[in-house]
Order: sequence, then C-alpha cells, then structure tokens
Amino acid sequence: MFRPGLLIVISGPSGAGKGTVCRALLEHYPELVLSVSKTTRLPRAGEQDGVSYFFVSKADFEAGISAGDFLEYAIVYGEFYGTPRQGVQQLLEAGRDVLLEIDTQGARQVRENFPAGVFVFLVPPSGAELYARITGRATESEEKIRQRLSEAAAEIAQVYMYDYIVVNDVVEKARDEIAAVIRAEKCRPTRNIELIEGLSGEVMFL
Amino acid sequence: MFRPGLLIVISGPSGAGKGTVCRALLEHYPELVLSVSKTTRLPRAGEQDGVSYFFVSKADFEAGISAGDFLEYAIVYGEFYGTPRQGVQQLLEAGRDVLLEIDTQGARQVRENFPAGVFVFLVPPSGAELYARITGRATESEEKIRQRLSEAAAEIAQVYMYDYIVVNDVVEKARDEIAAVIRAEKCRPTRNIELIEGLSGEVMFL
Repeated sequence: MFRPGLLIVISGPSGAGKGTVCRALLEHYPELVLSVSKTTRLPRAGEQDGVSYFFVSKADFEAGISAGDFLEYAIVYGEFYGTPRQGVQQLLEAGRDVLLEIDTQGARQVRENFPAGVFVFLVPPSGAELYARITGRATESEEKIRQRLSEAAAEIAQVYMYDYIVVNDVVEKARDEIAAVIRAEKCRPTRNIELIEGLSGEVMFL
Repeated sequence: MFRPGLLIVISGPSGAGKGTVCRALLEHYPELVLSVSKTTRLPRAGEQDGVSYFFVSKADFEAGISAGDFLEYAIVYGEFYGTPRQGVQQLLEAGRDVLLEIDTQGARQVRENFPAGVFVFLVPPSGAELYARITGRATESEEKIRQRLSEAAAEIAQVYMYDYIVVNDVVEKARDEIAAVIRAEKCRPTRNIELIEGLSGEVMFL
C-alpha cells in the first residue's frame, strides 16, 4: 500500500543547532531527503546546481513567486532564496520524507502554504548555551550578536505555533526524538485512510 | 524539571491483540505502569487485591460513580468494572506514564473525562487475521463469534476519534510504534510549558 511522504520542517532560533541536527538525521535515516532551495545568488566554489541550491535568474524566481511556486521565500542582501513547492511535492508523491531546515519566518510561510507538514521547533538546552553558540561564531560583530539574541527571544515566543519542541542538548537525542516524531506522525489516522478503508471493507464482508 | 506523566489509552476491536501489545510495552519500558481497575466481582484464585483489580463492594462502586470517581466504567454480566480517576491521577502526578488497555466504549468515556490522554487504536493487519484471532478462541459459540465480528466492523469505523492507529502485525513493531508515539507526545509544546518559560526567561536577560 502506498503512502505519500511527510514534510518535516525543522526551525528554531539561531544557536539551536538546526544544521547539525538535520545532518545527523539525514545520515542516520536514509529514507529522509533534504529539500533543495532555489536562489538567485551566484554559485560559490564547489557548489553544484541541484545539490546545494538550484541556481536561477531573478526573472525566473519572480515568475515563480507570481505563480505561487514557493512554499516560502525570503530576500537576503538583495538575493532571493525559496523552497520550490513542486520539488517538495514530487518527492512526497514518490513516498519520500522531505526535511526542510528553515528560519522561523520561513516556517510560518510553510505553515500557511502546506499545513499538512510536521513542524518541529528546535531549542538549545539553556540561555547560556544559546549565548555560547551565538557568540562562538567569531565572524560576527557585537551588534549582530545583540541582534541575534533579541531575535532569539522573540522567536522562542512562537513555539506554540509548532507541533513539537525538541531540545538540542545531545545531538543524537534530538535526532532520535525527531525520528520518533516522524514515526508517530505516520500513525495518524488521517495519513492512513487507505489502510483503514481496506481493513473496514475486509471486516464488513467476513 | 518535573513533567507529569502521560495517560496512554490502547483500544481497538477484539482480535487486535491489545493485551499482547500492552504486555510487550510494559516489559520493555519499565517507566510505564498499567492502570489497575476497580471491580465488584469476587477475586478468582490467585488474584490479589490492588494487583489484578481493586475488589470493592457494589455500594462503594456506586458511590464512586455518583462522585465522578471513574474515568470510565461498564457493567458486564451484572458486575461493575471501572478505571479510578484518582489512582490514575496520582501516578501521573508522580511523573509515571500510565497505560490503559480498554474496549472502545471505555475509550470513548475516557476521551470525555480525560481529553489530555493519548488515544491509540490498535488493529489487526487484515480482516483474515482478525477472523483467525476471533475464531481462534475455541471457548466461544458461533453466535458470539458473529457478534464479535459485526462489533469489530462498527468499532473500526470509530478510528478517526483516535490520535493514532497502530497495526499489530508484528508485536515488537506495534510496541515500538507506540513507544515512538509516547516519545513524540512528550515533545508537544503544551506539555513543556515550564521548559519553554524557563528558556524564554533566560534568553530575555542575556
């Protein structure tokens, strides 16, 4: 019996460790696949079209926006980044579970455009740890760090919009909790209508 | 940080294998504890008060019903059977996860009286398997078997009232799916309010 895949959205404040946890999930559960975003920025050395990103022109991207082709998009330093709806949909229809790692603004857009997704909010284990992770990025200015910290506070307030909260204390534990979420969500009655109708039909004619 | 336990209700048609799966869960996850019912019937040889059941008088039981002391109860062949609310509540407040194995009528009552519970509907893998399991109980009359089969059909139609459906094909797989459901449900934001408020407070004062 065929079941379409799940869209799993991993979001949370910066310093939560979204990237690390998503990499751990992808390594451990090969049935998962990461959604590849589209962007208008130029490829950097070593980046391959269709792997890191789909590199497209601004005109293409804007046509996509008009056509409603993005589950979410954002403009960062004048460049567009977005999650193509069709790419995700094709993977789901092929039965793959699709992982989407995204900031909270993007997650909010995906919630509107794809409410059947499963939304996981990742948090660091403590304020001190969040501070350590954000200030540990030696490349950022004091001002940028202050901004990230105050954004994090506002973002945490949005947790009740999510289906699940996962604390990223130990990466393997966070990874396994998300795996349990995926396994549990596959047991939702509304995701098993075909199975239920099949069984009902069989039992009715006993 | 303290978190109260979860009430996990395992229900489903007869022939689903509720008892087997619950025993497997209890053996494998010692943090789980089975709710002990109250009954007015007399103890059988080897049954211990407080272990198999709490054995009480009819007057006691009826007083309990009037006082709203039962999450659910039923009368079978003139004897009362019920789940004491207080017993369950005390275990939950002590942080234990409480397992309740119950028929679909009982589960419906628990849903009304304790909506914070997690409701799992267990089904056999096929109609043929359901038939085999029900007819395999050599002690039952043809008439009783026909009744169980038609009841099963009506019960399966209620699956959408449940949070999860688990197929009991291989017991260990069903057990692990329910374990994943429990782990996932513990990640619900509304079950982690203390954690979220603690973290918000810390981040706000960074």
